[in-house]
Amino acid sequence: MVIHIINGPNLNLVGIREPEVYGSQSLDQYLAGLIGLYPEHTIDVFQSNIEGEIVDRLQQVGFEDCGIVLNAGGYTHTSIAIADAVAAITAPVVEVHISNIYSREPFRRRSLLSPMCKGIIAGFGLDSYRIALTALLSNESGQTT
Amino acid sequence: MVIHIINGPNLNLVGIREPEVYGSQSLDQYLAGLIGLYPEHTIDVFQSNIEGEIVDRLQQVGFEDCGIVLNAGGYTHTSIAIADAVAAITAPVVEVHISNIYSREPFRRRSLLSPMCKGIIAGFGLDSYRIALTALLSNESGQTT
Amino acid sequence: MVIHIINGPNLNLVGIREPEVYGSQSLDQYLAGLIGLYPEHTIDVFQSNIEGEIVDRLQQVGFEDCGIVLNAGGYTHTSIAIADAVAAITAPVVEVHISNIYSREPFRRRSLLSPMCKGIIAGFGLDSYRIALTALLSNESGQTT
Amino acid sequence: MVIHIINGPNLNLVGIREPEVYGSQSLDQYLAGLIGLYPEHTIDVFQSNIEGEIVDRLQQVGFEDCGIVLNAGGYTHTSIAIADAVAAITAPVVEVHISNIYSREPFRRRSLLSPMCKGIIAGFGLDSYRIALTALLSNESGQTT
Amino acid sequence: MVIHIINGPNLNLVGIREPEVYGSQSLDQYLAGLIGLYPEHTIDVFQSNIEGEIVDRLQQVGFEDCGIVLNAGGYTHTSIAIADAVAAITAPVVEVHISNIYSREPFRRRSLLSPMCKGIIAGFGLDSYRIALTALLSNESGQTT
Amino acid sequence: MVIHIINGPNLNLVGIREPEVYGSQSLDQYLAGLIGLYPEHTIDVFQSNIEGEIVDRLQQVGFEDCGIVLNAGGYTHTSIAIADAVAAITAPVVEVHISNIYSREPFRRRSLLSPMCKGIIAGFGLDSYRIALTALLSNESGQTT
Amino acid sequence: MVIHIINGPNLNLVGIREPEVYGSQSLDQYLAGLIGLYPEHTIDVFQSNIEGEIVDRLQQVGFEDCGIVLNAGGYTHTSIAIADAVAAITAPVVEVHISNIYSREPFRRRSLLSPMCKGIIAGFGLDSYRIALTALLSNESGQTT
Amino acid sequence: MVIHIINGPNLNLVGIREPEVYGSQSLDQYLAGLIGLYPEHTIDVFQSNIEGEIVDRLQQVGFEDCGIVLNAGGYTHTSIAIADAVAAITAPVVEVHISNIYSREPFRRRSLLSPMCKGIIAGFGLDSYRIALTALLSNESGQTT
Amino acid sequence: MVIHIINGPNLNLVGIREPEVYGSQSLDQYLAGLIGLYPEHTIDVFQSNIEGEIVDRLQQVGFEDCGIVLNAGGYTHTSIAIADAVAAITAPVVEVHISNIYSREPFRRRSLLSPMCKGIIAGFGLDSYRIALTALLSNESGQTT
Amino acid sequence: MVIHIINGPNLNLVGIREPEVYGSQSLDQYLAGLIGLYPEHTIDVFQSNIEGEIVDRLQQVGFEDCGIVLNAGGYTHTSIAIADAVAAITAPVVEVHISNIYSREPFRRRSLLSPMCKGIIAGFGLDSYRIALTALLSNESGQTT
Amino acid sequence: MVIHIINGPNLNLVGIREPEVYGSQSLDQYLAGLIGLYPEHTIDVFQSNIEGEIVDRLQQVGFEDCGIVLNAGGYTHTSIAIADAVAAITAPVVEVHISNIYSREPFRRRSLLSPMCKGIIAGFGLDSYRIALTALLSNESGQTT
Amino acid sequence: MVIHIINGPNLNLVGIREPEVYGSQSLDQYLAGLIGLYPEHTIDVFQSNIEGEIVDRLQQVGFEDCGIVLNAGGYTHTSIAIADAVAAITAPVVEVHISNIYSREPFRRRSLLSPMCKGIIAGFGLDSYRIALTALLSNESGQTT
Repeated sequence: MVIHIINGPNLNLVGIREPEVYGSQSLDQYLAGLIGLYPEHTIDVFQSNIEGEIVDRLQQVGFEDCGIVLNAGGYTHTSIAIADAVAAITAPVVEVHISNIYSREPFRRRSLLSPMCKGIIAGFGLDSYRIALTALLSNESGQTT
Repeated sequence: MVIHIINGPNLNLVGIREPEVYGSQSLDQYLAGLIGLYPEHTIDVFQSNIEGEIVDRLQQVGFEDCGIVLNAGGYTHTSIAIADAVAAITAPVVEVHISNIYSREPFRRRSLLSPMCKGIIAGFGLDSYRIALTALLSNESGQTT
Repeated sequence: MVIHIINGPNLNLVGIREPEVYGSQSLDQYLAGLIGLYPEHTIDVFQSNIEGEIVDRLQQVGFEDCGIVLNAGGYTHTSIAIADAVAAITAPVVEVHISNIYSREPFRRRSLLSPMCKGIIAGFGLDSYRIALTALLSNESGQTT
Repeated sequence: MVIHIINGPNLNLVGIREPEVYGSQSLDQYLAGLIGLYPEHTIDVFQSNIEGEIVDRLQQVGFEDCGIVLNAGGYTHTSIAIADAVAAITAPVVEVHISNIYSREPFRRRSLLSPMCKGIIAGFGLDSYRIALTALLSNESGQTT
Repeated sequence: MVIHIINGPNLNLVGIREPEVYGSQSLDQYLAGLIGLYPEHTIDVFQSNIEGEIVDRLQQVGFEDCGIVLNAGGYTHTSIAIADAVAAITAPVVEVHISNIYSREPFRRRSLLSPMCKGIIAGFGLDSYRIALTALLSNESGQTT
Repeated sequence: MVIHIINGPNLNLVGIREPEVYGSQSLDQYLAGLIGLYPEHTIDVFQSNIEGEIVDRLQQVGFEDCGIVLNAGGYTHTSIAIADAVAAITAPVVEVHISNIYSREPFRRRSLLSPMCKGIIAGFGLDSYRIALTALLSNESGQTT
Repeated sequence: MVIHIINGPNLNLVGIREPEVYGSQSLDQYLAGLIGLYPEHTIDVFQSNIEGEIVDRLQQVGFEDCGIVLNAGGYTHTSIAIADAVAAITAPVVEVHISNIYSREPFRRRSLLSPMCKGIIAGFGLDSYRIALTALLSNESGQTT
Repeated sequence: MVIHIINGPNLNLVGIREPEVYGSQSLDQYLAGLIGLYPEHTIDVFQSNIEGEIVDRLQQVGFEDCGIVLNAGGYTHTSIAIADAVAAITAPVVEVHISNIYSREPFRRRSLLSPMCKGIIAGFGLDSYRIALTALLSNESGQTT
Repeated sequence: MVIHIINGPNLNLVGIREPEVYGSQSLDQYLAGLIGLYPEHTIDVFQSNIEGEIVDRLQQVGFEDCGIVLNAGGYTHTSIAIADAVAAITAPVVEVHISNIYSREPFRRRSLLSPMCKGIIAGFGLDSYRIALTALLSNESGQTT
Repeated sequence: MVIHIINGPNLNLVGIREPEVYGSQSLDQYLAGLIGLYPEHTIDVFQSNIEGEIVDRLQQVGFEDCGIVLNAGGYTHTSIAIADAVAAITAPVVEVHISNIYSREPFRRRSLLSPMCKGIIAGFGLDSYRIALTALLSNESGQTT
Repeated sequence: MVIHIINGPNLNLVGIREPEVYGSQSLDQYLAGLIGLYPEHTIDVFQSNIEGEIVDRLQQVGFEDCGIVLNAGGYTHTSIAIADAVAAITAPVVEVHISNIYSREPFRRRSLLSPMCKGIIAGFGLDSYRIALTALLSNESGQTT
Repeated sequence: MVIHIINGPNLNLVGIREPEVYGSQSLDQYLAGLIGLYPEHTIDVFQSNIEGEIVDRLQQVGFEDCGIVLNAGGYTHTSIAIADAVAAITAPVVEVHISNIYSREPFRRRSLLSPMCKGIIAGFGLDSYRIALTALLSNESGQTT
């Protein structure tokens, strides 16, 4: 199965920015390790600070037979354009957040994307990405459910 | 590891109530199957329609060395008492929802419990419970992260 | 036909509590008289101050071939759990209120239950219960409409 | 006893307009049948699309010894003028709605008239009118309560 | 000078309706007495319960060389149509209220008309009309200011 | 094709009232010229300051095979009764506004009618009416789309 | 009769401050002229920029047999202390405003004092003071009403 | 005199839960010491995590000749049912809080119970209970006031 | 121990102003009696209608070894300046209110001072002052807690 | 005349995305047909998913002698940057929407751009573009108005 | 050039009050040093805890040829009276804040004064005053701009 | 010292766009002159209309030993992504605005960036940039404070 991980603004700073919130491991290091755990799958990582490039990416890959893990960073709370792109494409999108966005500033508690996503996973640190993979892959093979 | 699954009001009706939202498999059947997949762990299921009994249960098991999966149903959105109990205990609590609560009525979009929980998983149907187990167990053994 | 009357918190005090709002006849006395007027029907009365016991009761009787008259008292305005139970069951539920809840404190003007109920009857004093019976029974026999 | 049924804007279209909400029987047909069921009472029907004519009508009949059944349609949610008229007159007014206004658009959930009315009956389809009659008439003869 | 007094819905009931708020003298009696005090002026009284007829009246007289005393009753708080008419005409309009609208229900505290009127006089009972005349007439002759 | 143009309160003053907002040509003059441009169509103009008469008119013509251009003036922002009438009838309704209502007072930015109309045209001065005709007529003949 | 005119902050600048709003005559000049028109009454003027001194003044004179004209300037919209003083004293208080406060910034549209005052007069320029005197004096002698 | 102390959800955890907020002495230990200071009074302690059981308790003891000290914990902010019970009974109820609820999360700043209680005491730590006793007892004997 | 009682605007009128709310004993009489009950303590009373003088007083005494009882009257709900002073000083401040401010007008329900105070006591009539003394003094000697 | 059509995010998916809302013809096909109908005019089409590129485009063409048709897609509701660009340029901008944005989710009902645009056309499907052209071109030649 | 520095409530405590927010240098010491840096200018410092005295001071100096640096402390967020004074005077007023008021409690984020001031400088600690001087002085000599 | 000036959308139009708000000098001309005044410092200017490019720029320079002057234009009020970048980097950021954003449209009064910046300077026209330089440079050398 093909998985596209799409990361939004400032996620390239994880491990540098506010380590008390996001931890001190860089997201690149973490994701490289994570990809190594799933040799049988194609896992692709994309990051941009530009809202419209995230829309572009979703349009590009979102009509393929794949799963998408989306952490839109600060655009989570402000981007109708990304929400519209998620609604328009056919691939399932799992929204992830490293931190527990519901225990932070009020403006971070509302995600414009959540209503358009298949599921939401938040608060498990970088491990949120691994859990999202698990969710997408098991969903695929249908085991248990 | 010991896992306590705590379910709130009307979750005993899953499979009966609004199948277009919650699916037609009963939660009991699903959880029995799920427990069978993890023979090496003790997984315990509790359900009550009474808010205070959920508080009681959290107090009872929440100071043990365990993990808790909590789906508080309708109390998710109204219960400060349960939120206080989650904050008071020492075991990690993962909040789960079968449906995508962020795409339903406005009053279901805000969880009073989320700020107190370790992480949140929502929208994957009954599979949300399996994903929550994965999150708690991997968290335990620390693999990947 | 079987009718279940379900009363919520503090309705056991009617006739004692705030007689200028609720009148001075006790609800038990009134309902005994009312049942006597309908000897051909089975009419059953349940009261609890505990939100979850009202959910329990609705689940218990709500899949039978019956009608339900529900006065959830103070839970009318705060209980998503009861509203979910009303939505989940198959029996028609008529919401009643003794007082005109729309002319009282602002928090009493919004009922979380109303959107889930078949119909609403409010403001006729204890007579609201009799009118609700009339509504459920005529509905049954289909006369006029 | 004399009963005045006063209907507001667009209620002359019932049976034509949005039958999935209001049913397909015309209100005129329904009310003619209903009046036939109460030969011992004088029941009078008035309809206008003009807010001020409803005020006029309430002033005209509202100081007589009668009961009033009022369905003010769309003015229910916007007319302080009608609410003031209901408060000013001496006859008891029962507010009725064909649909369950509490389960529709937010602006239909608040009635400016309810605080001024004796009682409210909503959601029983055209049968709401019959139930309102029952409420007014039994109120008159005082039986049961 | 010509003065047009325009009264809105339910003001024909003053002296009958809620005497504890509006007093027990009828508005017609009061205004007849008031007109008698100003024999040198033409003072004209108009009342309607219909919003659009108040708009009609304002358009009819509002381009003449006159002053207008407007008590729009319940439409004060809901009518953009009347506010637009007041803004469109050239005659000065003084808004009057018999009661102190700022000490009553919240919805009576906001007047949509006030921003369009020359001045506002409220709370002096029926005497508010006399004070409004004084304001319009002295304004005319310019004495003092 | 038959087109009904329905104008609400104070639109009979266009050219007189606030010319800096609405321009100085009277609406009657403008519409006479506009009708002359479409000799092959029956174009009918109606104006009233009374909300309920606009409801009456919509009911009268709205079940015919025609198109409706509706400028409800100040009732645009307050009338659920007119919105209900637009929803009830079968003819397509195009909402027009002479001024750009979105750049004026906050209460003019929300139209209760827009959700019920086929389309909205605002801000082009009197030319808004001609554009609305173009929209209805081309819609008819289906050219281009 | 004794009349106390009490003016709040910045009213000593009238004629200097924002003449396009308040006009260019100084309030002192105007009030001197006004007092001259009523030689048979004792009219006293007090001004302070300090909220608590206005409270002091109201307490001092407010239990006498007199009438009070109060223009609390900017404190009109923020002072519960002055509102409490108005409610506590026994003399009737007429609230006046030079400008039409309802057509200015939103924060000027709400007066905390109005609910406690006998009546409100606003928008007539400096003439508002004369009209207030007329209201208080006629009230005294009871003529007309 | 008889005093009933009624404690709500999670107060059985005081001394365990969030000691930086509630201190580290258990409430049981504290109350035992407090009761020892008042040997001449009957002081009774009740705790439940279930909202309806607090309603039950208030109904049971609230018509006796006694005083009630109520700390409803998280239900303080959500329970209309408890507020209704406080209003219905005849014994005076003093609301207490260990912490200063007004300096915590916004949802803790509003108590639904306060308007129904005789008085409120908050922020003195466990000492709030002793102060409440003092208030109820002195109230009894009437000394000072 | 030294105790400073600081009273705000209109509290010098207690016993005169609205006796149905505040009772008919003057606050001066009451406090004199209260001081007599505590001969071993220095108890000092200050009152001002001027917000800034209350700030001055808090600054003056608030760095001494003392306790402060503060009833800021109407400034309770509007004064950030007093709240800042309470936060800046080192002496503990107990906020008191004679009436139950939570059962009165909405604007009286929110105190800007509460978050900065050690504790809050409200609703016990003049007895609130005595209870506050008890709280401050016992706090001093540490008995019970 | 030169016309610039500027389309925002996800409009390149029209015909693919949510056909029940936007129809199944692609916007490119439609616009090619539309341009063919106006051979005497230069009509230019630009699309970008990037907010800032829409600002760039508006700056580039907006000081020329041209007309602009702008459908900013999801940025309509969130972009002050685009609104500022529309206000800064000199060419007239007509805002268009394919769907009736006022009948969709609440966040789509408010356009930040509307107050800055010459006019608004919404709800006519792809035909909205043709109507906008008509509006701009007739505006140019001034016919009718 | 003459500069008036006007400081509001509690600023006399800077260096004492909440040093983690305001630093530990007293404002008097700081300002003495600052004045020494500008021997060629007359710099005058005024402080009061009384709102009305700040109004008085602004009126006194604000019509002179000078510049004003205003830090109104807690009155920044509540005083329409001071805002009106700033608007009324002719001297330019620069609003300063020691702390970054936008990163503190919500009620400190809104300044009623800002709309009336020439410019705002906040967050630079005591250095905010020096920067304000620079702004006023350079503004005077017009260098650079 | 190195200073990075970062300008957001439409600031390249200053001197062209709305000169009554922003003045008629171009920002480029102004900044060239300003840089000439500080030959001993490296001052670098960057402008983009694209939100994500401003994030990129902040990330690029923000971990250097420098100061940043940021005018994010319209993104000031909507961009959590830029606010997150400001919070993530280590260089001090001074927010500047040419106009007094607090006296303009309500949506311009709230800056999402202010809470993350060291200080804010607004309202001094183009001179705001020079004052910001002064603030950053003096901050460096520490003189005065």
